[in-house]
Amino acid sequence: MTIEPDTGGTDTVFHGYFRSSAAYRCRIAFNLKGFAPAQRFVHLRKGEQKSAAYKALSPAGLVPALETPRGVLTQSLAIIEWLDETMPDPALLPADAWTRAKARAFAQTIACDIHPVNNLRILGYLKTPLGHDQATVDTWYRHWIAEGLSAAEALAQDAGGHGSFLFGDAPGLAEICLVPQLYNARRFACPMEAYPRLLAVETACNALPAFADAAPDRQPDAEG
Amino acid sequence: MTIEPDTGGTDTVFHGYFRSSAAYRCRIAFNLKGFAPAQRFVHLRKGEQKSAAYKALSPAGLVPALETPRGVLTQSLAIIEWLDETMPDPALLPADAWTRAKARAFAQTIACDIHPVNNLRILGYLKTPLGHDQATVDTWYRHWIAEGLSAAEALAQDAGGHGSFLFGDAPGLAEICLVPQLYNARRFACPMEAYPRLLAVETACNALPAFADAAPDRQPDAEG
Repeated sequence: MTIEPDTGGTDTVFHGYFRSSAAYRCRIAFNLKGFAPAQRFVHLRKGEQKSAAYKALSPAGLVPALETPRGVLTQSLAIIEWLDETMPDPALLPADAWTRAKARAFAQTIACDIHPVNNLRILGYLKTPLGHDQATVDTWYRHWIAEGLSAAEALAQDAGGHGSFLFGDAPGLAEICLVPQLYNARRFACPMEAYPRLLAVETACNALPAFADAAPDRQPDAEG
Repeated sequence: MTIEPDTGGTDTVFHGYFRSSAAYRCRIAFNLKGFAPAQRFVHLRKGEQKSAAYKALSPAGLVPALETPRGVLTQSLAIIEWLDETMPDPALLPADAWTRAKARAFAQTIACDIHPVNNLRILGYLKTPLGHDQATVDTWYRHWIAEGLSAAEALAQDAGGHGSFLFGDAPGLAEICLVPQLYNARRFACPMEAYPRLLAVETACNALPAFADAAPDRQPDAEG
């Protein structure tokens, strides 16, 4: 089932990359909403995000970008909140303002504190011009994962949930940020045993087709 | 004038630091709303954010944190959106969903793409353990400022505004993120001439007491 918000439907194009966790977040949200824009793939390791054509869409040269008849929207969290406001069912944020704030804070702990400092462009800068080897880059990566996921685990425990999800009976923005970050943590062989609540929530999420189908290795542009 | 949302009024405590731009964002929002929580100061350069007492409030060991009778809220953008939802006047986001999404995307271009990679803890890691000198750290800082502000300037130009503010007739979340980031850019002597629209908006903002009074050098914990 595909339901379209007021974007001109099939005129809407999502620009992503299979391994971008910001694009992965959007894919989960799209699946939960039953929203299916056309897809274009921006090969980050080939530097396609730095092309003039792509930067005309996204001045930061980052994925994702959602191209609609109304204009282009960047930033995964802004895209997801826009979708949630224009296609309210199912809701991706709790109805109560306080719980909604806690869910946003959890999401931002990942989207502001972890993801940006481990982004491809940052790891690239550590190698060139800074001259660090892969082992040093990996240590950097794991350091910020451990700092951030420890905080996320504490926030998750504080949310007091013993159910399947963090802030209610269904997954939303918090889980949408969590699952791609845990995927990345595993890819860099980060120790995971200190995050039992996060892992339990991840398991519940990945049992849902909306999450499973959004995984990097299931995307058309996936590489080994 | 002080108006209080449903937080228990004077029982609400804001934990910040004069130079933290995430705290600076919150201070601007509080001033625009006429919200005046009690203040506590967390001295980041002395490492007070790493104390057990502070990490009990904010597991990430980052400022700001807003301690309310209902619990503690972290993440500046979550705090500001919560305040905007519980104290709607004046609105900090545009009423139209698309424009609101553009304003959030602008804010996140700063809060997700620039600020996290130039945060104190990141600059500290570049020095120890990575062993870089201040000049290399400064070059790192200016590189990410230039990348991010160039994108922000393009988004600002694209918003088409010739008025004082980015997405409407009054400042909101976008300006709340912009002004502290420009303050930081100047502190690190970043070239600023490529951002005429951002600078014009900054000038309009800083003419308002809500912005001017939130500046780092006007805070009780300010140091030279």
